[in-house]
Amino acid sequence: MVIDCHGHYTTAPAQLGAYRDAQRAALAVDPSHVGEKGSLSISDDELVESLERNQLRLQRERNIDVTVFSPRASWMGHHIGNEHTSRHWSEHCNELISRVCDLYPANFAPVCQLPQSPGAGIESSVRELRRCVDEMGFVGCNLNPDPTGGSWDGPPLFEPYWWPLFDALCELDVPAMVHVSAACNPNFHSTGSYYLAADTTAFMQALTSGLFRDHPDMRWVIPHGGGAVPFHWGRFKGMAEENAASGWALLDDLMSNIFFDTCVYHQAGIDLLVGVVPIDNILFASEMVGAVQGKDPETGEYYDDTKRYVDRADLTDDERTKIFEGNVRRVYPRLAVPSSTS
Amino acid sequence: MVIDCHGHYTTAPAQLGAYRDAQRAALAVDPSHVGEKGSLSISDDELVESLERNQLRLQRERNIDVTVFSPRASWMGHHIGNEHTSRHWSEHCNELISRVCDLYPANFAPVCQLPQSPGAGIESSVRELRRCVDEMGFVGCNLNPDPTGGSWDGPPLFEPYWWPLFDALCELDVPAMVHVSAACNPNFHSTGSYYLAADTTAFMQALTSGLFRDHPDMRWVIPHGGGAVPFHWGRFKGMAEENAASGWALLDDLMSNIFFDTCVYHQAGIDLLVGVVPIDNILFASEMVGAVQGKDPETGEYYDDTKRYVDRADLTDDERTKIFEGNVRRVYPRLAVPSSTS
Repeated sequence: MVIDCHGHYTTAPAQLGAYRDAQRAALAVDPSHVGEKGSLSISDDELVESLERNQLRLQRERNIDVTVFSPRASWMGHHIGNEHTSRHWSEHCNELISRVCDLYPANFAPVCQLPQSPGAGIESSVRELRRCVDEMGFVGCNLNPDPTGGSWDGPPLFEPYWWPLFDALCELDVPAMVHVSAACNPNFHSTGSYYLAADTTAFMQALTSGLFRDHPDMRWVIPHGGGAVPFHWGRFKGMAEENAASGWALLDDLMSNIFFDTCVYHQAGIDLLVGVVPIDNILFASEMVGAVQGKDPETGEYYDDTKRYVDRADLTDDERTKIFEGNVRRVYPRLAVPSSTS
Repeated sequence: MVIDCHGHYTTAPAQLGAYRDAQRAALAVDPSHVGEKGSLSISDDELVESLERNQLRLQRERNIDVTVFSPRASWMGHHIGNEHTSRHWSEHCNELISRVCDLYPANFAPVCQLPQSPGAGIESSVRELRRCVDEMGFVGCNLNPDPTGGSWDGPPLFEPYWWPLFDALCELDVPAMVHVSAACNPNFHSTGSYYLAADTTAFMQALTSGLFRDHPDMRWVIPHGGGAVPFHWGRFKGMAEENAASGWALLDDLMSNIFFDTCVYHQAGIDLLVGVVPIDNILFASEMVGAVQGKDPETGEYYDDTKRYVDRADLTDDERTKIFEGNVRRVYPRLAVPSSTS
C-alpha cells in the first residue's frame, strides 16, 4: 500500500476563491472587519469533478492508494486580514476537506489548516484543531511557522506562545506538518525559496532549542524533503555536536520527533535523502497537484511523480514498505485506512 | 593546485572587535552617529600569529594552496548603525584583508565586503568595490542580498537598485559571492538556517527574473553548495521550464553566470552536488575556519575538510582539477597566483 502524506486541495471549485475574494474586498474597506462565517455553496458533483480530473486521476496513474489531504497551503494566507478572517476561512477550508474525505474515504484522509493570525493568540488554533480531530476525524494539521508570510517577525517555535498547541497535538496524538503559506514578500518566491527556507528554519529552531525535550511525544513532519537539511546533514550534525553542552539537540535526538517527506523532484535528491536520513524518519509524499506539474523533457516523466524515485532508490523491500506505508501509519496513528484498498 | 574560494578572516586580533564595540557604543547614544573612520592598531606580528595558528595551519594540513579571503561574513553586520557606520567598518575590514594578502601573497587572495546599509543607496558600495579592486588588487566581493539581517524588507536582487553595482562588477571583471551576514532575527540561526535560506533565495531571484539577461557578463558564486538548490534541482528545473514563457531563466541559462562552492560538510552532499550541477559550475571551498569546526566522531575527520570529500567523489582527474583550480581561476580572472606555489 502507498500512502502519500502530503497533498493539498489545490483544485477546489471556483466558489472557494470567490469566498476569499469577498473577504479581501471587505478587508480593503476595513482591515479590522469581523463579518460572519457565511456559507459556501459547492455541490458534491463539483467536488467529485475537481478531484476525478486531478488528484484521483493521478493517484490511479501512479499507484498511490491514499493521500493525506489538507487545504491548499499557498492559500492558507494567515497574514491576510485578522483572526476573524482566518477563523472563518480556515473553518470553510477544513469543512471542504472533510467533505472530500467523506466522499472518498478510501482515497483521502483529512488534515486541517489552523486559523493562525499574526499577533493573535494560539488558542483559536487549538480550538479548530480539536474541532477537526474530535468532530470530523482529522488525522493531523498544518502548522505555519511564519504566519506573517515572509516578515518572520512572530515568535519562533521554541517560544512558550506555541505550547498550548503543542500540548493539544500530544494529547490528540496527531502530528503537525510544518508548512508556510504563500509569501507576501517580494524577496521570496513561495514554492521556490520560501517553502524550503521555512523548512530549514523550523528544523533549526528545534535543533538549537531542544524544544522536544519539553514535548517528547510531539511529532513534526518537515515537508519538501526537509528543505536544505539532508543536503547539509554534516553541517547540522557537526553544529549540534559542538553545541550540545549549551542545550542543542543532537540529530539522533530529533529523530524521535521529526520526519521528512519525499517531496524532492529528482532521483539524485531522493537518493541523498534515503542515504543520510534514517529510513524510519522518511514518509512518502508527492504534493501533487502542486508546485511542479510538468514532465522532465529528458525522461518524459512527471517531476512530482516521486513514487518512481523511491521505487528506484537503493532500498530493501522492507525499507520501501516503511517509507510507503509503515512510517506514515506510525506518525499518523489516527489514519484508519485498512491495509488493503483493492 | 588547490584554491579555496571561500575563506573568511574569522580569527582577527581582538582590536577589530574592540573597534566594532566602540561603534556600537556610539550608536547606542545616537543612532545617526557619523563619527570618523579612526584607526585600528594591529601589528604585522599579530596578524601573522592569528593566521599561522589557524588558517595557515589548516591550509598546510589539508594541502590547500591558496584561499580567496574576505572579512568575517557574520561580522559584516550591515544592519548595524547607518551608512557611515558601515563605510568606516568595511574600509577597516577590507584594509586588514589587504594587509594579510600582502603578508602572504602566495596563500591568500583578497575579496572585500561592501558598505551596504538598509535604506541607503548602493553608490558607496560601488566606490568601495572600485577602491579595493583598483587600488589594492582585490579579486572579488561579497554581496549581501539582505543587509537588514533577516527582515528581508529591502529590494530583491532583480530591482534596478542594484544595477550600478552589477555594472561595476562587469566592468571590473570580478565576481560577487552572494553571502548574508549574521541574522538579528530570533527566527533564524545565522549559519544554520539564514545562510542557507539566503543562498536559495538569491538563486530563485535570479531564476524568476532572468536578471542575467541584462547583465550577461556578471558572475555570482552562491556559497554553501548553493543552499538547498542542488538537493532540489528537479524542483527548480521543472519550475523554470513551466515558467520560461513568462520570463524566467532556464537552469542551463543560469549556468553561464552562477557558480556553487563546495561548502557542504559530508560526503553524500558533495556527491549530490557534483552529480547534478555541471562540473564547470563548481568551485572548491571549505569556509574554514567557519561554522563547523569539529570532527565527525564516526570518521575522525573535520567536517569542513571538504577536500577529502572532493578527492573521494566520483570524478575524473580533469573534473577534479577544474573544481580545485580551473573553475576558480575562470570565475576570478584577477586571481594572479602562479600555477605552482611549491
